[in-house]
Amino acid sequence: MNETEVTVVGNAASAVETRTTAAGHPVARLRLATTVRRYDGERGGWTDAHTSFYTVWAFRTLAENVAASVTVGEPLIVRGRLRVRQGEREGQRWASADIEATAIGHDLARGTSAFVRVCRVPAARERAAGP
Amino acid sequence: MNETEVTVVGNAASAVETRTTAAGHPVARLRLATTVRRYDGERGGWTDAHTSFYTVWAFRTLAENVAASVTVGEPLIVRGRLRVRQGEREGQRWASADIEATAIGHDLARGTSAFVRVCRVPAARERAAGP
Amino acid sequence: MNETEVTVVGNAASAVETRTTAAGHPVARLRLATTVRRYDGERGGWTDAHTSFYTVWAFRTLAENVAASVTVGEPLIVRGRLRVRQGEREGQRWASADIEATAIGHDLARGTSAFVRVCRVPAARERAAGP
Amino acid sequence: MNETEVTVVGNAASAVETRTTAAGHPVARLRLATTVRRYDGERGGWTDAHTSFYTVWAFRTLAENVAASVTVGEPLIVRGRLRVRQGEREGQRWASADIEATAIGHDLARGTSAFVRVCRVPAARERAAGP
Repeated sequence: MNETEVTVVGNAASAVETRTTAAGHPVARLRLATTVRRYDGERGGWTDAHTSFYTVWAFRTLAENVAASVTVGEPLIVRGRLRVRQGEREGQRWASADIEATAIGHDLARGTSAFVRVCRVPAARERAAGP
Repeated sequence: MNETEVTVVGNAASAVETRTTAAGHPVARLRLATTVRRYDGERGGWTDAHTSFYTVWAFRTLAENVAASVTVGEPLIVRGRLRVRQGEREGQRWASADIEATAIGHDLARGTSAFVRVCRVPAARERAAGP
Repeated sequence: MNETEVTVVGNAASAVETRTTAAGHPVARLRLATTVRRYDGERGGWTDAHTSFYTVWAFRTLAENVAASVTVGEPLIVRGRLRVRQGEREGQRWASADIEATAIGHDLARGTSAFVRVCRVPAARERAAGP
Repeated sequence: MNETEVTVVGNAASAVETRTTAAGHPVARLRLATTVRRYDGERGGWTDAHTSFYTVWAFRTLAENVAASVTVGEPLIVRGRLRVRQGEREGQRWASADIEATAIGHDLARGTSAFVRVCRVPAARERAAGP
């Protein structure tokens, strides 16, 4: 309840880092940069006005597919729940804007993509089918 | 001013149709379906609750890349400006929910995608480089 | 799951209609109009480009407060879940863009508002406190 | 271009501070807190899961009306452009999530509001009507 949904269109500003939780679920993490551009009437063109950085988190199937598909610098659309985390460490304040992603895609405004659907085999059947 | 931004996560419910405007700009059009799912406590599972359909429009480079990348049934994230159009035709009212897309991507929650950046050659240079 | 969240800034295009469900819960309904404005460089001013209409639904406390606060023509911010409903009636197609509101407010970009918090008395206590 | 639109439903966590720019335009600033709530199946109720804080900026008429209408603790809907600002000061990193508001309203899910439309007198006419 009260979740703040956000969609950010930007670029992967880091490689995708992955790890596995104690329960065996994959987690992926990447930095996303988005640059606001403004029209400069005097110069007659667009200029970069400000860049925001987000830490994007993906879980399970989305985490696996992002790790298999995304490399640094690629243009992305990220949809998810926004969270601003703030704290104090050794007397200094810090803050981070995190997105828990529900959907991520390569931005077709900037290129083409070849999609392959992934059928996730439920863990139980996976084990049953094992050696 | 007063634009209504929306992000819809769904599936391509039609093939992508393309045409070229009188001014020579590519336009792409597809139907997008998104199905709300609800948790049914009695049955202990998720059930489809409602499907909304949108008409998605893309222009220029985005139109070309969508036409080259998207096929019927693929999962998509679509970001754009929402417009509800209503009218009357032969005495009957009709309505349509349109999205003028600014970004479209394959949803990595459902599969993997291989991205290739497209460098749009400005029209003037394209002509200069021609035969 | 898969809900499409949307925020629309516009004006109440109808009075608020209210009714009570069989279970005794209040429901409010109003039409919301939002007009996109475009800058017209030739005329040097903003012009109306397109108006979208939505049917907004509110339930329970939100329904009661909207009915007590909103009149036709007032500027509103509406946040909720978007649904496009389509059907056929007597051989003709119709469609409607509905928003199931989670939050509604008067837009302070257009005026001032005096707010009074409403403390909803839980039904059980209400009954216990009755005559 | 590339703006990240966001709508946050929360509470005013500070009083509204106002100032006037060198050019004579009013600016208002407030802190906004939004708390995600999760359903706790074991306890059978909702619990607070996380609170995000934003710095909200309003300009001109919106700034004046917010200053005249909003007090600490009131429930708000804020729509605007999200910006994550980060820097380093005396060797320490800091960050802030800012919203440049385009619309702000009291949330009718939590109370009632009495709205009064403000007609902004254009500056030229204001001066002409002066003493």
